[in-house]
Amino acid sequence: MQADALVLLGAGTIDVPPSWVRPGAAVIRCQPSLETGIVTYTVIVITITLHSCFSVFISDIEISRAQTPKPVDQLAAEIGVLPEELEAYGRSKAKVQLSLLDRLHTQPDGKYVLVAGITPTPLGEGKSTVTIGLVQALSAHLKLNSFACLRQPSQGPTFGVKGGAAGGGYAQVIPMEEFNLHLTGDIHAITAANNLVAAAIDARMLHEATQSDKALFNRLVPSVNGVRRFSPIQISRLNRLGINKTDPASLTPQEVSTFVRLDLDPSKITWQRVVDTNDRFLRKITVGQASTEKGMIRETGFDIAVASEIMAILALADSLEDMKNRLARMVVGTSRSGQPITAEDLGVSGALAVLMKDAIKPTMMQTLEGTPVFVHAGPFANIAHGNSSVLADKLALKLVGRNGFVVTEAGFGADIGMEKFFNIKCRASGLRPNVVVLVATVRALKMHGGGPNVSAGAPLPREYIDENLSLVAGGCRSNLRKQIQIAHLFGVPVVVALNVFKTDTQAEIDLVCQLAKECGASDAVPCHHWAQGGRGSLELAQAVNEATSRPSNFQFLYNIEMPIVEKIRTIAQKVYGADDIELSPEAEAKIDYYNQQGYGSLPICMAKTHLSLSHMPDKKGAPTGFTLPIRDVRASIGAGFIFPLVGTMSTMPGLPTRPCFYDIDLDPVTEEITGLF
Amino acid sequence: MQADALVLLGAGTIDVPPSWVRPGAAVIRCQPSLETGIVTYTVIVITITLHSCFSVFISDIEISRAQTPKPVDQLAAEIGVLPEELEAYGRSKAKVQLSLLDRLHTQPDGKYVLVAGITPTPLGEGKSTVTIGLVQALSAHLKLNSFACLRQPSQGPTFGVKGGAAGGGYAQVIPMEEFNLHLTGDIHAITAANNLVAAAIDARMLHEATQSDKALFNRLVPSVNGVRRFSPIQISRLNRLGINKTDPASLTPQEVSTFVRLDLDPSKITWQRVVDTNDRFLRKITVGQASTEKGMIRETGFDIAVASEIMAILALADSLEDMKNRLARMVVGTSRSGQPITAEDLGVSGALAVLMKDAIKPTMMQTLEGTPVFVHAGPFANIAHGNSSVLADKLALKLVGRNGFVVTEAGFGADIGMEKFFNIKCRASGLRPNVVVLVATVRALKMHGGGPNVSAGAPLPREYIDENLSLVAGGCRSNLRKQIQIAHLFGVPVVVALNVFKTDTQAEIDLVCQLAKECGASDAVPCHHWAQGGRGSLELAQAVNEATSRPSNFQFLYNIEMPIVEKIRTIAQKVYGADDIELSPEAEAKIDYYNQQGYGSLPICMAKTHLSLSHMPDKKGAPTGFTLPIRDVRASIGAGFIFPLVGTMSTMPGLPTRPCFYDIDLDPVTEEITGLF
Repeated sequence: MQADALVLLGAGTIDVPPSWVRPGAAVIRCQPSLETGIVTYTVIVITITLHSCFSVFISDIEISRAQTPKPVDQLAAEIGVLPEELEAYGRSKAKVQLSLLDRLHTQPDGKYVLVAGITPTPLGEGKSTVTIGLVQALSAHLKLNSFACLRQPSQGPTFGVKGGAAGGGYAQVIPMEEFNLHLTGDIHAITAANNLVAAAIDARMLHEATQSDKALFNRLVPSVNGVRRFSPIQISRLNRLGINKTDPASLTPQEVSTFVRLDLDPSKITWQRVVDTNDRFLRKITVGQASTEKGMIRETGFDIAVASEIMAILALADSLEDMKNRLARMVVGTSRSGQPITAEDLGVSGALAVLMKDAIKPTMMQTLEGTPVFVHAGPFANIAHGNSSVLADKLALKLVGRNGFVVTEAGFGADIGMEKFFNIKCRASGLRPNVVVLVATVRALKMHGGGPNVSAGAPLPREYIDENLSLVAGGCRSNLRKQIQIAHLFGVPVVVALNVFKTDTQAEIDLVCQLAKECGASDAVPCHHWAQGGRGSLELAQAVNEATSRPSNFQFLYNIEMPIVEKIRTIAQKVYGADDIELSPEAEAKIDYYNQQGYGSLPICMAKTHLSLSHMPDKKGAPTGFTLPIRDVRASIGAGFIFPLVGTMSTMPGLPTRPCFYDIDLDPVTEEITGLF
Repeated sequence: MQADALVLLGAGTIDVPPSWVRPGAAVIRCQPSLETGIVTYTVIVITITLHSCFSVFISDIEISRAQTPKPVDQLAAEIGVLPEELEAYGRSKAKVQLSLLDRLHTQPDGKYVLVAGITPTPLGEGKSTVTIGLVQALSAHLKLNSFACLRQPSQGPTFGVKGGAAGGGYAQVIPMEEFNLHLTGDIHAITAANNLVAAAIDARMLHEATQSDKALFNRLVPSVNGVRRFSPIQISRLNRLGINKTDPASLTPQEVSTFVRLDLDPSKITWQRVVDTNDRFLRKITVGQASTEKGMIRETGFDIAVASEIMAILALADSLEDMKNRLARMVVGTSRSGQPITAEDLGVSGALAVLMKDAIKPTMMQTLEGTPVFVHAGPFANIAHGNSSVLADKLALKLVGRNGFVVTEAGFGADIGMEKFFNIKCRASGLRPNVVVLVATVRALKMHGGGPNVSAGAPLPREYIDENLSLVAGGCRSNLRKQIQIAHLFGVPVVVALNVFKTDTQAEIDLVCQLAKECGASDAVPCHHWAQGGRGSLELAQAVNEATSRPSNFQFLYNIEMPIVEKIRTIAQKVYGADDIELSPEAEAKIDYYNQQGYGSLPICMAKTHLSLSHMPDKKGAPTGFTLPIRDVRASIGAGFIFPLVGTMSTMPGLPTRPCFYDIDLDPVTEEITGLF
């Protein structure tokens, strides 16, 4: 820190408006008192004249660390979670047991608010900060019960380009390092479960290739002290095969063969391994090259862990039993005779449920202003559905009660995260949202209005720093208008939240709010939560409260019984603005196969770039006149959706030349972390 | 369960000796009262006449579940851990902060007991149950403070062949499912850290191959608002390179090139990826086959996560700072000019320390009789050092105080686990053990005495069920004698603990105890902890207490300054009984290289089969007249040891045709787990 002058403004306990706490001031200690609703800080403010006002700022982790979170059991008591329903993980995070849903089942649900966004720049436009600012405003300032439901960040981006996902500035989940690192281990549990399935697949193919039917049967149904018995998971498989026998000795040789041989076609394994690291060299690999694997090499790959079907199941399951059944139904590949092979066929589904038994409980944390947050399920709405969990939302809706608010977040632009929230998550949960908050920034609007390229790591062009009303207007009339229209397709009112940056001018802010309303938003307001915390989002909280009093006429975009191709076409045309879709021969063949297997009535989870409404990342605004290419189609039968791949989407990110990890460090004496943001 | 008759013996609260609770009795509810030291059960015993007395037994998980663990904060209070030193993870496990070591630094250490074993059968001979039975006897029955220090099991064996590692019968850590599944996430943290290094290696090679020096420098040291700065981790690298400059602009073009290019030789990358799953198809793989990786394919592989160097560092570090420094020193490969490249060169060492900041704190749990246990670091003494952590032992030694006992466990036979405990772990910790408990079973002794092959999954041959004194004597006079001699090489007295099975006859038990003493053991006693809990290990506890009053003259097996080859030869000859060693040309070249790099003064961590004193798994007893083949040599510079591979050791286990997971299931209503053992 290079300072020309230090001026001590005050010391001891003084009232400091949060807006004082801005770039250029170093806050030594902040201690908001949250119970009173009045934010009082114990603070020393040092004003610094800097060589460059951009070269020193208060980092997110410094703000996070400056606030001591209240003990998680105290938070639980405040919001009506009983001690026996809470499983603490350290002092500031806890899992909440699902039995809470039974206890509160007569309690009416609160209001349900979805935060979505316009198509973002690669830098992100602050949906998480808006979500946190909004609940801080609702709870700590308007005195309305509220809960934020967020997704657990992937360690890939945390150590890659993006950094953490705990919000930022004065709208954060704290402690942000707990949020951004292992949390309570859910993603690790998913990784372990996913990779146990993968190991089971390859080992099973090897054992089938090297053993007779009889040898396989003797090992799969071993004689223990002279008695052979099928395990329950084997009885399930026999039933699916139409062999209604329970005595192993009664199987005919043909039935033994049918039972012991999954006969997986190595070229039709759809199950990939996963890792929660941006490891691009694992995108396409060859496995089985050690001599012990007897030449059974095959090509496969790793996805980022949050793209695992098991993550989607965690988000969509509405009970432990539902999760277990979904895990059992997961299809991992196809037999040589064209039959789908499931996790239950591999005998692994019980073990998967055991590995996931704690992950299904949402993790409770708190915002910087002490309001409750659930963190559950994962991000990546481009290559997954990218929504937080049904169970977290349901628990939160009961906890806030009739007049309370649950604010949940859908990843990336409304065209992907929100579309999947409505068509997949709301279908699974039966919940209906009251209002959509659509997050926009002047920066992203200028990009959509024709501004130059924005990329991570490069300095922002002048257009994004200086006032430019024409670019702003262009963005409002293209991408913002389209995203509002998409929300209206579902019959839900929209409040536009303009996440204000310090370079935005008043004229730009006013223009966005005016045009957003002209484009159909119920309301449009500027938000200053990053600099001011909940107080900076009061206007948004009032607008949201107002909007939820209006009727919402929720409807799905498509009927689930429509043919798969028609469902894909509907999303492409109505949501993305495409003229039509174009299926690769591979995609067509897969769709035929899924129809034939009876998977035709599942909703669609598109894997599409988040950087454009179209499949072309560089087409900003609201592109038209394009045909959407469907390169391949996969099926996540356990999660319950068909998964078309649009264009060249990768399911494994990479590391840049200088990843975030270069700046991340730990002081071994104070145990303080630096460089996480 | 097929019963011919049910006889209700009692209901309500009655006194039942634990020995009643045996195969043939179904216990509905067991509630030992531990505070009094008298085991009282609230129990209903139903005696069942069975078709086969072997086909129904009380499983470990049923015993574990029948006992409600005391709250972990109560356990902590009982043993003197302050509330602020405890981080609960749910109700029955907690991490203990390292600051406790500072608070108790003036407290004298307790006595230090190592549990090792004779060469086991593939079924394992019960070192963990002996460890737990011993602390139960010391604490709950002899009223001596005691602590067990165990290793966290790998999920590979838990879902593969072996099952869990929480002990068994009435000598278990509870809840055993918490112990055997994710615990507090340490192995997941190791996996994440290990694989972040791997991703950093391949991504860096790609970026260096596709960018000029200038482009790399511009990205690695970016201009932020016109100012370039080195990060602390980059300054470290510059210092190692002998470039004592801090202003990026002052580097010469040659210095820029030296700084930005790690110039890793793809054929000399020693860092492998890891997964905590038995995934044999990952033993040898080719990565980088997607077109985005531009043809930079290379062969590599995955190890089981517990074999990661980071696991070894977790076990050997004695502070957060020591761990951080060791992580930075890890060598991942060699540059084309022959220089070792470290994790710090990759810029990733700070992030590794951050990922491992919670894993370094040992996890506290309890035995079935409510005595404290630390679980920390990992198993696999064949392909790793396989010992629990230095920090757990140090914390426990302070907590039990001068007259207390810390019982720690070394993996597999004394020839590998104990040898590494002494030569590697004791060297790192400075701690000196008072006594070695050497675990033997009649089963393993018969095998070493010439009995037929024992293999997992196959029925035990009659020799192992019927009395056979000559096989027992043969095993005592070969393997048991040799393992006792190995402990005496280090100057530590040995108590032999015979883990009694129900098929052992009194004559067999007496013979083992008699011959063990003839072979040099200070004492030899039978143990009945599996059936009786701590009460069944009272004799062992008394023998151990007695043995610790004798002087121990601890000495290392080799001087650390001996040449690498001599250290390997010393272990091979004195410990394994080999005539000599034979180095492959590759091993010789590696040793030359390590000497040249200044790594010659590190201790040796042999990767050798655990199924024989030799490198040949089928050579039982105490083989002689063999030459030990050293196929390859690796170096774990961060962990601090040289790692010779003996024969064809695999660092990744496989799954059998019918893995354990077939029987593992979760009841979604009661949330009870079945099939874990």
